Amino acid sequence: MSASVMMSEIPWNEYQRRIAEEDAIVFVPVGAVEQHGYHLPLGTDWMMATYMARRAAERVGGVVAPPVMYAARSQVRTGGGPHRCGTTSLNAETLIAMTYDVLCELGRHGARKIAVIDGHFENRFFLDEACYRAQRDLEARGVRDLRILKMLYAERISPETMEKAYAGVSFPGLDLEHGGILETAMMLYCYPDLVDVSKIPDEALPDFPPYDLFPVRPDWVPASGCLSSGKPATAEIGKLLVEEFVDLVSTAVSAEFR
Amino acid sequence: MSASVMMSEIPWNEYQRRIAEEDAIVFVPVGAVEQHGYHLPLGTDWMMATYMARRAAERVGGVVAPPVMYAARSQVRTGGGPHRCGTTSLNAETLIAMTYDVLCELGRHGARKIAVIDGHFENRFFLDEACYRAQRDLEARGVRDLRILKMLYAERISPETMEKAYAGVSFPGLDLEHGGILETAMMLYCYPDLVDVSKIPDEALPDFPPYDLFPVRPDWVPASGCLSSGKPATAEIGKLLVEEFVDLVSTAVSAEFR
Amino acid sequence: MSASVMMSEIPWNEYQRRIAEEDAIVFVPVGAVEQHGYHLPLGTDWMMATYMARRAAERVGGVVAPPVMYAARSQVRTGGGPHRCGTTSLNAETLIAMTYDVLCELGRHGARKIAVIDGHFENRFFLDEACYRAQRDLEARGVRDLRILKMLYAERISPETMEKAYAGVSFPGLDLEHGGILETAMMLYCYPDLVDVSKIPDEALPDFPPYDLFPVRPDWVPASGCLSSGKPATAEIGKLLVEEFVDLVSTAVSAEFR
Amino acid sequence: MSASVMMSEIPWNEYQRRIAEEDAIVFVPVGAVEQHGYHLPLGTDWMMATYMARRAAERVGGVVAPPVMYAARSQVRTGGGPHRCGTTSLNAETLIAMTYDVLCELGRHGARKIAVIDGHFENRFFLDEACYRAQRDLEARGVRDLRILKMLYAERISPETMEKAYAGVSFPGLDLEHGGILETAMMLYCYPDLVDVSKIPDEALPDFPPYDLFPVRPDWVPASGCLSSGKPATAEIGKLLVEEFVDLVSTAVSAEFR
Amino acid sequence: MSASVMMSEIPWNEYQRRIAEEDAIVFVPVGAVEQHGYHLPLGTDWMMATYMARRAAERVGGVVAPPVMYAARSQVRTGGGPHRCGTTSLNAETLIAMTYDVLCELGRHGARKIAVIDGHFENRFFLDEACYRAQRDLEARGVRDLRILKMLYAERISPETMEKAYAGVSFPGLDLEHGGILETAMMLYCYPDLVDVSKIPDEALPDFPPYDLFPVRPDWVPASGCLSSGKPATAEIGKLLVEEFVDLVSTAVSAEFR
Amino acid sequence: MSASVMMSEIPWNEYQRRIAEEDAIVFVPVGAVEQHGYHLPLGTDWMMATYMARRAAERVGGVVAPPVMYAARSQVRTGGGPHRCGTTSLNAETLIAMTYDVLCELGRHGARKIAVIDGHFENRFFLDEACYRAQRDLEARGVRDLRILKMLYAERISPETMEKAYAGVSFPGLDLEHGGILETAMMLYCYPDLVDVSKIPDEALPDFPPYDLFPVRPDWVPASGCLSSGKPATAEIGKLLVEEFVDLVSTAVSAEFR
Repeated sequence: MSASVMMSEIPWNEYQRRIAEEDAIVFVPVGAVEQHGYHLPLGTDWMMATYMARRAAERVGGVVAPPVMYAARSQVRTGGGPHRCGTTSLNAETLIAMTYDVLCELGRHGARKIAVIDGHFENRFFLDEACYRAQRDLEARGVRDLRILKMLYAERISPETMEKAYAGVSFPGLDLEHGGILETAMMLYCYPDLVDVSKIPDEALPDFPPYDLFPVRPDWVPASGCLSSGKPATAEIGKLLVEEFVDLVSTAVSAEFR
Repeated sequence: MSASVMMSEIPWNEYQRRIAEEDAIVFVPVGAVEQHGYHLPLGTDWMMATYMARRAAERVGGVVAPPVMYAARSQVRTGGGPHRCGTTSLNAETLIAMTYDVLCELGRHGARKIAVIDGHFENRFFLDEACYRAQRDLEARGVRDLRILKMLYAERISPETMEKAYAGVSFPGLDLEHGGILETAMMLYCYPDLVDVSKIPDEALPDFPPYDLFPVRPDWVPASGCLSSGKPATAEIGKLLVEEFVDLVSTAVSAEFR
Repeated sequence: MSASVMMSEIPWNEYQRRIAEEDAIVFVPVGAVEQHGYHLPLGTDWMMATYMARRAAERVGGVVAPPVMYAARSQVRTGGGPHRCGTTSLNAETLIAMTYDVLCELGRHGARKIAVIDGHFENRFFLDEACYRAQRDLEARGVRDLRILKMLYAERISPETMEKAYAGVSFPGLDLEHGGILETAMMLYCYPDLVDVSKIPDEALPDFPPYDLFPVRPDWVPASGCLSSGKPATAEIGKLLVEEFVDLVSTAVSAEFR
Repeated sequence: MSASVMMSEIPWNEYQRRIAEEDAIVFVPVGAVEQHGYHLPLGTDWMMATYMARRAAERVGGVVAPPVMYAARSQVRTGGGPHRCGTTSLNAETLIAMTYDVLCELGRHGARKIAVIDGHFENRFFLDEACYRAQRDLEARGVRDLRILKMLYAERISPETMEKAYAGVSFPGLDLEHGGILETAMMLYCYPDLVDVSKIPDEALPDFPPYDLFPVRPDWVPASGCLSSGKPATAEIGKLLVEEFVDLVSTAVSAEFR
Repeated sequence: MSASVMMSEIPWNEYQRRIAEEDAIVFVPVGAVEQHGYHLPLGTDWMMATYMARRAAERVGGVVAPPVMYAARSQVRTGGGPHRCGTTSLNAETLIAMTYDVLCELGRHGARKIAVIDGHFENRFFLDEACYRAQRDLEARGVRDLRILKMLYAERISPETMEKAYAGVSFPGLDLEHGGILETAMMLYCYPDLVDVSKIPDEALPDFPPYDLFPVRPDWVPASGCLSSGKPATAEIGKLLVEEFVDLVSTAVSAEFR
Repeated sequence: MSASVMMSEIPWNEYQRRIAEEDAIVFVPVGAVEQHGYHLPLGTDWMMATYMARRAAERVGGVVAPPVMYAARSQVRTGGGPHRCGTTSLNAETLIAMTYDVLCELGRHGARKIAVIDGHFENRFFLDEACYRAQRDLEARGVRDLRILKMLYAERISPETMEKAYAGVSFPGLDLEHGGILETAMMLYCYPDLVDVSKIPDEALPDFPPYDLFPVRPDWVPASGCLSSGKPATAEIGKLLVEEFVDLVSTAVSAEFR
């Protein structure tokens, strides 16, 4: 029991002990419930964010709070859009409030080093808002030494990894990496049972105009919902990417908190 | 892959198919992240609510949406209080918004039969509020045939089960069944690895006055955070209770939706 | 004039004097505007909560703030439901904000001992939320010694009273005591002119399933809106109950504040 | 029982009958809990608004909903200011939500003619906001023929009455008529037991600059909290004013709804 | 560059310097986007409020923050109503939040003397609310010496100016001065290119009843949207008024802050 | 007068005519009030967004609504951070509400083609949220044919322009283009009087880690607040960029709406 880094799996006094005695960093994974094509499950984003948080927590000494699973509204040009079946988005105010409330509670518990690990592109500024205000408001209540680190776990990919992961194809950009090589490979490495490689689409890259439309134009997005093809993905590529991201997160967190 | 009833584990088109072709009932488990004594993990409430939803979904034909893990503020006389370390509560407005947003999205997906499965006593009226308004507002947007069933999975215990589960001790009431026989036994049956039976407290039942105080009086609550002792709990009792609750939920959902 | 305990009936300087010089406890009654069958008026809940607050204030030295009349959404299995004509519910956020604002103002006035007296079952957790946050936020503004006691005035009934009040019938539980013996008897004792005994229904007890449905099923609730019959009620029973509840409230408040 | 026009004092079916069969106008009084000097009680505003609503309802055929007692933040130059002890203001959002929720519920009940009777100067635009949005949103839910009339009951005073009421003194304007002749006289006529004429102040009129300051300058306001002196007030003047306002309200409501 | 008093036109360090070294008063103009008849532009209110703020800032040493252009819902009897084409109103909560956020940011910048200059009648109590809460909440965050002055720039007109401006006609009151002599004259003086004198209407004064209706009655308002005629307006009258208001604002601000 | 495309500068009936008779596209510029180094004014973002909207409106037949000047919280790695003096950010909920309210009002006016022109990187998802919900909610109120196009005016730069604008230096990315070549050059072309070329900093590019910290680390950002140097900027480069962006916006809007 007590070996787990997952907050949900340990009793309160063990959680308290780790913060007080082990100076544990509390990780808050944030994902999304969002379509990822025919071959990846709806939970891809929150599962991968939680995976990264767990791995980093194990490495640097941390506890992983339950993930914020439901998150920011998916947008057409980055996640296939808010209109897709299965994609389950929160209103922006709800996401901000949700993250804010959790951060405030962690601060009340005594946590002073918090790492918000984001796995969904559209969450970006909403999480910034929640982090900024939670830290500021806790300070007004006397919690003066709390620090929150927030990062997209995939924000940087090294040239070497990029070269191997995208051998023979071009990197479409993180925004179009929705259900593509990156996510498919990572899921093949981490959750192979949840990937149906026979269903990976091979559609043309969408040719998005430089703007968004409301109501959305469903025909802008390939039928599968993927924005690029994950065909070349393998578990080996996944391993490369995942381990690099675990390093990226762990290094960032250590740099600030250790 | 496609055999799972967990929405997070299936692709969007499979989810869509189940709703459209199999008339799947969508379950929304709602729990809490709350202290449950020294022997039960912080995730007890959301894990058990999700467990019940999954078992019922498998039985009646359903899909289980990701749980609303963080939920209503714990109160002293029902959950040990909002002030405990590890207990991570949302503001009431956030919980209502969170549940409301998810229900609205499910309605947008085409789900017309939704079952909200509650595993945390204090959630009660907040969930009612979210359900009432989601149904009403979706109707105003043209979704006219949506029905939402909401229940506490443990709302009723049969006299026979009660007699066996509480043989030789008296049932303290659902409000004091916090970290007591009921939850300990169920967790022993469902998640034995997360229970540390050596830590089950044997404290006196708290003698709560008929009112609440703010700020809370920490000394009203036993040190462990449990409101009654889980000492007599066994996996066998857990099985009795769990199977009865799975029946209760399945029967309720079937009665309305099948 | 100055003898009244009702805040609305005294000038501000008299109110101020009582808090500052007489250490007055400020009572905040919270009720509902809700159907109570054909024989009880729509204001039953807020009138009885205000009555209890007034009697207790007279006994222990207090001032009664204007009641929060409109309150939590009525639910089918506890108050006949949100859909009934005459039942006038607030959105949950509004009720929380309303109570919170009033509590914050009382704290600003200098009140340090506040008793929230609840007369409507569904208000429970919403009032807890308002009390918790008002106390916490006032503390952040420098009001460090404020205490709020919150109670349902009818939370406990002694076995002796129970035996007399429900002689020959069985107590249906507080949740089904909607327009039944308890409320009818109390109103007969306190506000006899507002009770039409000829209209007391004699319907069968509703047989509620262990869940709620949205939209509500109107046919679950007896036509009158009462959840149990008030036929056996008398003013004598009312007196017993009322005096017991006045004692309960006064004793609770004295125990904490005197 | 059934003769009362007060919604709180009649059962739901009688309320329903009046709306459905008698085309009753539903009045919503809105007041304030606000200091009114040493000689008038804190409830002056909501009591007078409710009085006006009751009298008009009796005349034109109406039902009076429970008053919105707590209301808009008092301002220095119109009500003595938000900082006074006893003055109990809602945040603006709360007042809007409160009024909005009540109006929406009345619309749901079947009421199609609603009169909001305001007795507190600062409520003005907040009530407009609530009325505008309640009507608009109910229309979106299919309630297409609802009309809401909103008025300050004292908005107009005839020259004849003015001459009699302010014989020998000059009318200071409605904004400075706080605890002055108008309110004192009306209370003497309607609630003489709640007026302590021996305490009517005789302070100089405040000489307000043409602006507001935050934080407020307490010394701008006379010590009593009154903005003009009620010394000349008598019950006779009160009768003149009250009857004129009852006429004003009744005539307005009849003109639109009868 | 650095000579401008407009915050938008100077770099941040120059803005900082003026607050820190020159004790600059920060002006926040608040207007409206609202119909003003056929002859005045939709921006009249925010343009005139900004004009006043700029002139006063130049005189007393100040910086003018970008105006809050969109503002309170127009009402029939003061601005022609919320239903007119071109009138673009914010929900009340939005206006309060907008003004509150800006004030809080100015406080964070170090500004301790803020002047909110209002040019739209309906903004009144919403701005009071924002100012009250911004000051209070900043104090809780440690900003203890902030003062906010708020005024309607046209709140007072001297008898001499009144006599000249309304020679031969009667002043209809500030509420009916919508698109009338006052605003037309001021715009002729300040922004003559934006006034089409050939389109000034000569409609009868509306005869408003002493109440408001929702939904609004469009036929209560003259077709042009003006509530009184601006025919007699000239640039000379405009100059008189404008210079008087600039004096009024400058004097008020100086009296408090210099 | 009537030739202006600025909504604030024309009367309501002219605005109405353009929408009804000329099928005018309504542009809503959104900017920020944000530090842009020592050499660019605080209003850079809203001024440039408004400029683009005006130019495009003149070309394609449109009206420009008053800009949303105050906008999303500045972030360290894209705008220098929320902590800088002069940077005046709205809470996210306020920005969403503000934009939402304006869009809803435009829809009520009869506008059916709306173009939101964004000039501040951090606004992105907040504007998406407002656009999505305004369109959806207006549809529920019967406005069924409204379309909203939203774009960052600088989202794409052609290789030819890039080559000329960044001759000899490397493009740092849009996120670091804060107070750099792009903005400096555009302001030199459009508002030369507001640029102080002598103050253009020549600091090293910041070396941001792949994460954000709260509270922010002020020392991550160069002292000036610029994230890259605008030294090479000229009015000629500005012209190239501005005309390209005017083309980009006009083409986008025409493609959808003409």
